[in-house]
Amino acid sequence: MLACQALKKLRSASFLTSRGFAVLTADTVNPNVVKAEYAVRGALVLRSNEYEDRLARGDKSLPFDKVIPCNIGNPLVLKQEPIEFHRQVLALVNVPGLVDQPEVKKLFPEDAIERAKFYIDNIVGGTGAYGHSKGSACVREEVARFLQRRDNHPADPEDIYLTDGASPAVQNSLLALIRDENDAILAPIPQYPLYSAAIAINGGALVGYYLDEENAWGLDVKELARAVKEGRDAGKTVRAMAVINPGNPTGQCLSAENIEEIIKFCNDENILILADEVYQENVYAEGKTFVSFKKVLRDMGKAYDDVELISFHSTSKGFTGECGRRGGYMELVNIDDGAKDQFYKLMSVNLCSNIEGQLMVGMMTNPPQPGDASYKRYVAQRDGTLEALKRRAAKLVKAFNELEGVTCNETEGAMYTFPKITIPTKAVEAAKEAGMAPDAFYCMQMLDDTGIVVVPGSGFGQKEGTWHFRSTILPPEEAVDEVIEKTVKFHANFMNKYR
Amino acid sequence: MLACQALKKLRSASFLTSRGFAVLTADTVNPNVVKAEYAVRGALVLRSNEYEDRLARGDKSLPFDKVIPCNIGNPLVLKQEPIEFHRQVLALVNVPGLVDQPEVKKLFPEDAIERAKFYIDNIVGGTGAYGHSKGSACVREEVARFLQRRDNHPADPEDIYLTDGASPAVQNSLLALIRDENDAILAPIPQYPLYSAAIAINGGALVGYYLDEENAWGLDVKELARAVKEGRDAGKTVRAMAVINPGNPTGQCLSAENIEEIIKFCNDENILILADEVYQENVYAEGKTFVSFKKVLRDMGKAYDDVELISFHSTSKGFTGECGRRGGYMELVNIDDGAKDQFYKLMSVNLCSNIEGQLMVGMMTNPPQPGDASYKRYVAQRDGTLEALKRRAAKLVKAFNELEGVTCNETEGAMYTFPKITIPTKAVEAAKEAGMAPDAFYCMQMLDDTGIVVVPGSGFGQKEGTWHFRSTILPPEEAVDEVIEKTVKFHANFMNKYR
Repeated sequence: MLACQALKKLRSASFLTSRGFAVLTADTVNPNVVKAEYAVRGALVLRSNEYEDRLARGDKSLPFDKVIPCNIGNPLVLKQEPIEFHRQVLALVNVPGLVDQPEVKKLFPEDAIERAKFYIDNIVGGTGAYGHSKGSACVREEVARFLQRRDNHPADPEDIYLTDGASPAVQNSLLALIRDENDAILAPIPQYPLYSAAIAINGGALVGYYLDEENAWGLDVKELARAVKEGRDAGKTVRAMAVINPGNPTGQCLSAENIEEIIKFCNDENILILADEVYQENVYAEGKTFVSFKKVLRDMGKAYDDVELISFHSTSKGFTGECGRRGGYMELVNIDDGAKDQFYKLMSVNLCSNIEGQLMVGMMTNPPQPGDASYKRYVAQRDGTLEALKRRAAKLVKAFNELEGVTCNETEGAMYTFPKITIPTKAVEAAKEAGMAPDAFYCMQMLDDTGIVVVPGSGFGQKEGTWHFRSTILPPEEAVDEVIEKTVKFHANFMNKYR
Repeated sequence: MLACQALKKLRSASFLTSRGFAVLTADTVNPNVVKAEYAVRGALVLRSNEYEDRLARGDKSLPFDKVIPCNIGNPLVLKQEPIEFHRQVLALVNVPGLVDQPEVKKLFPEDAIERAKFYIDNIVGGTGAYGHSKGSACVREEVARFLQRRDNHPADPEDIYLTDGASPAVQNSLLALIRDENDAILAPIPQYPLYSAAIAINGGALVGYYLDEENAWGLDVKELARAVKEGRDAGKTVRAMAVINPGNPTGQCLSAENIEEIIKFCNDENILILADEVYQENVYAEGKTFVSFKKVLRDMGKAYDDVELISFHSTSKGFTGECGRRGGYMELVNIDDGAKDQFYKLMSVNLCSNIEGQLMVGMMTNPPQPGDASYKRYVAQRDGTLEALKRRAAKLVKAFNELEGVTCNETEGAMYTFPKITIPTKAVEAAKEAGMAPDAFYCMQMLDDTGIVVVPGSGFGQKEGTWHFRSTILPPEEAVDEVIEKTVKFHANFMNKYR
């Protein structure tokens, strides 16, 4: 009997671990999951959590009195104010009957009450019921009108799918695109590692195209062609290209001309475009504006009506910054009806995205208008946030450029700086000994010395032999000065120590 | 040049469709996605949406004046009241400073204000910031205390992962378990099709075990053994067993003894248990109570400390019914640390589940207590909802059993009835001609004649040669009478037409 059981255990192909046979261990979990890496929340974050716990317990032995999380684009945790109108509407839709209470008029502006009534009347079952798997129709209509105003081209609510933030939308797109390990997706290097992680999880191949650091992180179509050739020479089918505009972590903002070249290239090579446009409100550089891939594509006319495009947006970024809300959408442009049906089915397996995230998308795309009670407050909050981000970006870029051996491109858009650092040979050796990439070693030392959490460039990919880190531009203005002061001191010490 | 482009297009292995070459079509999408089926939101729902649109436009040509959605467990769309306390807390946490306004005391009970302050103080960045990828610590602690009270065994907040409803938790578990097409998951027949869909999407094999309709949809371990043998004989590694308790669509409620047998079986066969316990509050049958797999497992003592269990719960069901909130959690029991790390990483790629869904989980597991201002109202709402569900279940089961050729087991728990219907030979032929399963044909005719939406048994799996449909027990009490009246009339007509 025992032998029989042991045999059965072996037949189930499980693993002998310290605690006996187990079905699911690090060795027997789906290897695609193991392969996936996500540095934004990796080892550094775990250590920073540990430091936070120690500080919270009153531990005075650390060389800093607080942890400053510059690792993740999470504005509201760094004192950015949420847009008041949006929050008021959320409060009002949640309590049945509240909009009709007389006291409510003292607490909430008229337009927030009106908007709440609109959602209450138009969202069947309210915020607590499953909605349509593609998202509530009235919100998809708000998004379509926003896209129409933005691009000056029609947008169809039926092509808009509301999602729990942009991340699951990207993941579902890659799930639909990747059939097996021979399917490849073009992704920028450096890139936000959602792409590499989701490609790994779905068992596909990532073919990297390098952004040109010497040329303000520009995207050169010749480099795209090189990458496609590399992928095809390796026997891969290059199905799609991920492009992040404005860039994460690189901050570049693509021109309409550049986007047109990319679209022509993808048309010639029959490559679907995944346009991550979650930072479309975050453009700071003089003379730069955000132009959507959809607009450029439609401007190019009928000849390009079969270039397939999926674009992503989110409530987490911009000046909305409502990350925890998990609101987002994707627009399917020139996508085959049969494929659209498959997306709809995929989303229906998850029933629907969270309704309050959907409402946040509605308010982001349909904010208070001139004449509305909340308009002035909305504009003040919006402009205040964007101007502060612009100032902080400039301040950080300037400071980083003054560090020994560091160069840092302008943050044209998005929420990050991505300085290139020179790591002395002795530090490279010390990192090797510690089993870490040199820039991860640098970032870990920065955390240990200053409490500042940034993400090493190796988590995003970078040209071989170069090292970087990504820091958000989100700390409140007084904290930015502190970040700079501490970084300057740390960097000088680090360089001296390993000189 | 043209020839060269055409060659490139062929090299990218795309498909010629009516609108030219396209990367993503129904024929070139990931075939695992195509394979997935999800009947709860399939063809019937699309037609019901069409009818709703026609009714909304004033179309008087239909033989009914409203669509009654009995296809999906979506209580708040059918007039179930949300728990007021939970909604009040959500309203208060969303507007910064609102809890301190004097008018607020007139509108909200004291305990809701207190709870909102607790969440405001304990959730870093509030509802609008990314939280910990496993979920906010203070909510995970609420869940752990709930589990401890429920099971009388310790629960560790570190083993609790908050998720956007139970569905993504199930999907992530299957993603971790399924390495390739040789990995099999045991799933009940009939079953809620999330399991079959997610197994297909992840490229694994489903091995079905039949629930015993003649024996109140009982789960017989001998049938489990048969299924495991079938899977292994086909060369599959049977990695895990999905069990839904109380059952969906079948409503059975497992006894502690039955659960103990299942655990012993899974221990002997080295199979991980996925326990879907989202209906744990929904038990109606006399003498039946919900017992969790965790409790039985821990009661069995140390010898079973290596049986691996992942259990799922949700805010969508029970008497909470907050489906649109997408709140849920999974508890990992006896899971290897390395595998837990992989789950954590998987969740971190998606950053975090939506914070308000997390708060709803917190309030579901930590509701008002005796002495709190909201306690009486909470209890009245809770008991009112559960008693109404119990009455409606009994009413529907009785009515279905009185139909010609129909038998229907008691709804011991969950939110559904699953009657077995006899379909006359002529109707089976007509269905064949229409390219539909006979029970799908029956359900479509029911929709066309009555506006009632139910789901055919073929969407859940059923013993060959038997036909069923699933109807929720959720319509408000007056509508249940209408559903019964219309169903009785439709059924008689259908039987007469095809006799």
